[in-house]
Amino acid sequence: MAQLRIALAQTNPTVGDLAANADKLVAWTRDAAERGAHLAVFTEMFLTGYPVEDLVLRTSFVDASIRTLEEVARRLRDEGLGELPVVVGYVDRAGLAPRVGQPKGAPLDAAAVLHRGEVVARTAKHHLPNYGVFDEYRYFVRGDRLPIFRLHGVDVAVAVCEDLWQDGGPVSVVGQAGAGLLVVPNASPYEKEKDDVRLELCHRRAREAGCALAYVNQVGGQDELVFDGDSIVVDGAGRLLARAGQFAEELLIADLDGLPVSDAEPGTVPYDAGDGSTITVERVVLSNDPVEPYEPEPARIAERLDLHAEVYSALVLAVRDYVAKNGFRSVILGLSGGIDSALTATIAADAIGPSRVNVALMPSRYSSDHSLTDAEELVRRQGVTARVVPIADIVNAYEKEIELSGLAAENLQARVRGMLLMGLSNQHGHLVLTTGNKSELATGYSTLYGDSAGGFAPIKDVPKTMVWELARWRNAHTLPGFLLAAERPIPEDSITKEPSAELRPDQRDTDSLPPYEVLDRLLDDYVEKDMGSQELIAAGHDPELVTRVIRLVDLAEYKRRQYPPGPKITPKNFGRDRRLPITNRWRETTT
Amino acid sequence: MAQLRIALAQTNPTVGDLAANADKLVAWTRDAAERGAHLAVFTEMFLTGYPVEDLVLRTSFVDASIRTLEEVARRLRDEGLGELPVVVGYVDRAGLAPRVGQPKGAPLDAAAVLHRGEVVARTAKHHLPNYGVFDEYRYFVRGDRLPIFRLHGVDVAVAVCEDLWQDGGPVSVVGQAGAGLLVVPNASPYEKEKDDVRLELCHRRAREAGCALAYVNQVGGQDELVFDGDSIVVDGAGRLLARAGQFAEELLIADLDGLPVSDAEPGTVPYDAGDGSTITVERVVLSNDPVEPYEPEPARIAERLDLHAEVYSALVLAVRDYVAKNGFRSVILGLSGGIDSALTATIAADAIGPSRVNVALMPSRYSSDHSLTDAEELVRRQGVTARVVPIADIVNAYEKEIELSGLAAENLQARVRGMLLMGLSNQHGHLVLTTGNKSELATGYSTLYGDSAGGFAPIKDVPKTMVWELARWRNAHTLPGFLLAAERPIPEDSITKEPSAELRPDQRDTDSLPPYEVLDRLLDDYVEKDMGSQELIAAGHDPELVTRVIRLVDLAEYKRRQYPPGPKITPKNFGRDRRLPITNRWRETTT
Repeated sequence: MAQLRIALAQTNPTVGDLAANADKLVAWTRDAAERGAHLAVFTEMFLTGYPVEDLVLRTSFVDASIRTLEEVARRLRDEGLGELPVVVGYVDRAGLAPRVGQPKGAPLDAAAVLHRGEVVARTAKHHLPNYGVFDEYRYFVRGDRLPIFRLHGVDVAVAVCEDLWQDGGPVSVVGQAGAGLLVVPNASPYEKEKDDVRLELCHRRAREAGCALAYVNQVGGQDELVFDGDSIVVDGAGRLLARAGQFAEELLIADLDGLPVSDAEPGTVPYDAGDGSTITVERVVLSNDPVEPYEPEPARIAERLDLHAEVYSALVLAVRDYVAKNGFRSVILGLSGGIDSALTATIAADAIGPSRVNVALMPSRYSSDHSLTDAEELVRRQGVTARVVPIADIVNAYEKEIELSGLAAENLQARVRGMLLMGLSNQHGHLVLTTGNKSELATGYSTLYGDSAGGFAPIKDVPKTMVWELARWRNAHTLPGFLLAAERPIPEDSITKEPSAELRPDQRDTDSLPPYEVLDRLLDDYVEKDMGSQELIAAGHDPELVTRVIRLVDLAEYKRRQYPPGPKITPKNFGRDRRLPITNRWRETTT
Repeated sequence: MAQLRIALAQTNPTVGDLAANADKLVAWTRDAAERGAHLAVFTEMFLTGYPVEDLVLRTSFVDASIRTLEEVARRLRDEGLGELPVVVGYVDRAGLAPRVGQPKGAPLDAAAVLHRGEVVARTAKHHLPNYGVFDEYRYFVRGDRLPIFRLHGVDVAVAVCEDLWQDGGPVSVVGQAGAGLLVVPNASPYEKEKDDVRLELCHRRAREAGCALAYVNQVGGQDELVFDGDSIVVDGAGRLLARAGQFAEELLIADLDGLPVSDAEPGTVPYDAGDGSTITVERVVLSNDPVEPYEPEPARIAERLDLHAEVYSALVLAVRDYVAKNGFRSVILGLSGGIDSALTATIAADAIGPSRVNVALMPSRYSSDHSLTDAEELVRRQGVTARVVPIADIVNAYEKEIELSGLAAENLQARVRGMLLMGLSNQHGHLVLTTGNKSELATGYSTLYGDSAGGFAPIKDVPKTMVWELARWRNAHTLPGFLLAAERPIPEDSITKEPSAELRPDQRDTDSLPPYEVLDRLLDDYVEKDMGSQELIAAGHDPELVTRVIRLVDLAEYKRRQYPPGPKITPKNFGRDRRLPITNRWRETTT
């Protein structure tokens, strides 16, 4: 029986910045070495960042990935870190002949083992996810090798991300071939309460592989995706040994004990992977002698965030990284006095600090008094930078040139506000944040080029009822890393008052939509669960409402296509996970 | 040896309108029967339309597809058409147990044979395309059956679309099992000069299958896709027997002669498909007796359109169908006097007639005299409905509230125009057409929410140099189906003058961009061919320009994400075929 101290690098890489990611690999490996680790494991495609989408189809990009891997291996050795093996994800290529439909260059979602300046083993993801946010049949070809490297007498196998989620394949082969530890680099995007699923999966696959399992996950925002970290170590019986926190970088150290010492012969052996394919195990030996017995450190098992803390943290991280990774220094948004813009401002202030958040108060002839006072109260509490820009004269100038009434006139006001924000953005370099929520986006209750104009939509995937919940939660809680000092940052009036777009006299959201608690339940069943109209009615939804809401949702597709990106927090957000033809005559209710 | 008259229904279905598609199936089958056909073949997923994207994940939708198939089989019999076998595409399900990553309900891209009121055979696409515009691993599971039905003594096999493009699979099994005719329903989207590739493919696969081949393709616009028809019949030696026209519905009749008479036993036999899978051939007999010998009709072999006629026809059809299928009655666009808006107006007038095309002339303080006169000249020639809306007072109203200079002030003017068009659209129900071309879109030389505001972008995938070519071509040619009577619909001045956005005094496109003939060649190599910077320089492009243009293209991704849909005519249009992370630090030129 042997011991090993492993270090899981739960990191936030930047897509495309191979040099910075390589620097981070070296720095974190040094950290792991200083903490006495025998093995450091980085995330899936760490050197390139994940996901890279069409970049992977460029020869130059794949060349750079492979070159960076080899360079960083040498650099680790040159900086005195060569004795500490590193597992890291990158992009490689399979070297297959081109054929119809195969991604150009046959790229691989690869991982390598670096040791003493060399790349001593390479593997690639076997199961390619092509559902939800994943399109990997478009980008990669399958891997069919499973490296098992001997480290201080312990056999360590490497599999990548999706290979853990699917039956058959690498995990099944580890069970047949035998190993002491399975390490799995991941880039597994956040979804509400996914951490429960993930832990159960690690339990189950560790038992199936018959060995300890170390799961290391990316953290950070990347366009519409947020990665939550939540790295996990379980032993061969599936017992939780260590767990990292959520939504923050962390080097998770875990001491493994009682690992089997192996004397399997090095070389290659093919195995039936149980999924109709063959996977070749490649055994290499780095070191046979177990480490001297040592006193294990107590491992960290981070507490889980509750639902609201989790979602709010995801939104803060998404905004922070979108701003930073795209090179912005500040944001701007329209502050109406309502709850959506109040929550968006608060998230932004928590993400990048109130001094970098600009708000425009843009009252119209239909704005009520409390709109301005509620907005001003938020400015006072948070210390964001505010300016007032009345829109009446601009609206009048349009109406002198063309005659607009009804919805066209309402939309005009929203658009004048959108264009003012874009003008201020272009003039001063602020990123425009839109403030629409998922319930509005779903039903099309928004103005194209009006309130939907902007660069990033922080609450795009948050239903209105959860907007209120998050506002109440944030007024009662704070977490380390939030940059807003204010005690109760959101004015209570903004939370409690009845929602209105204020685009005509005495307008209320309920003039056009059912109450949000009714609407959100129906949207959840229709959008997230893909229930048809008969199922929705059977589930207790009002038949008239089912017809009306399905129609709204299906017709709003064209608006959603032009909405800015925003962080995904549910299984089916509209940016990446739900795709309807715009030209579509199908109505659930026609059946 | 036997004869058969086959009818290929090159049709334009509407996605989601199952009732209308079924009606069309009955009407066209009647037509085929009246013309003496022994077999009618419709396109891939004809009953549902193609592509249906996430609709296929709804139980209710798949139920409706299967029910519609069975109903239409009975209806054909009830209307006296039951003796004429019909091959038609629809959506079915595989009945597999759910597993991670498998599309909900395990849908099949299916085809069926209808005869005497019954569904007598079913099959489904075996090779699922997941490249270019296709995401079929997301939507379908693989078929593994190949029906061969005996019709008047001739064995007829059925395969679906992609099965023709891939090596191995159904075509290889037809070659092994033996058949007299292979019929292939398709929904194969248009790309420039794809017809040459398609004919060569039919030649080759007919020889591989060892039998005649009938390829029937969808026609019509569907969001960003245009289907060009171009249905083809070749004999067993690969010789072209019949070919339908492009971009129009057509019932193509072909008389086949010298077909082998089969006495193979009915029943099921598994075959090695040569691609690692097994495909089961299912033979059924509809009729053993060859038809009485008859005099064949001369088959139509439609002439091919040349490149410009082809592209222009694709754009006209795309606009016509987007307008009609989305329930619009009219369009509106801004007419600047420049070539892009002139061509867009002309395409629209050819698509839906000049009386349904509205144009707004929106001069600013920087508009030159010829802008207004060139625009007015187009209005005079074409008879579209025009109004003049000066923007100066509106721009002034904004500038009284916020200070804007440089690019921010230029963008404001473009946005005021965009908002005027959207206002007129909302007030009168017109669909707004944007007028941006692919060169602008690629380099980000456009204003978000300005000239990019609208519902459909007809020349989104047309490079600027081709915009000029198409304008010259249209001034010299017309084709049946174009609705514009004018002889030379586009003012010569709009074609020959130097391009300018006219957003500041004496502005020229060449202030910001290289000459378009240089730019378009570079964009073609970078965007369509995915060449890296070293390859581009090696291909003779100016190194400084390569750096500059790559930077422009990569940074414009966030604008393109919010661009309206538009017809795809090249391998890599920005709507569906090129996907970069917005948050991306990779620059080709950093290597």
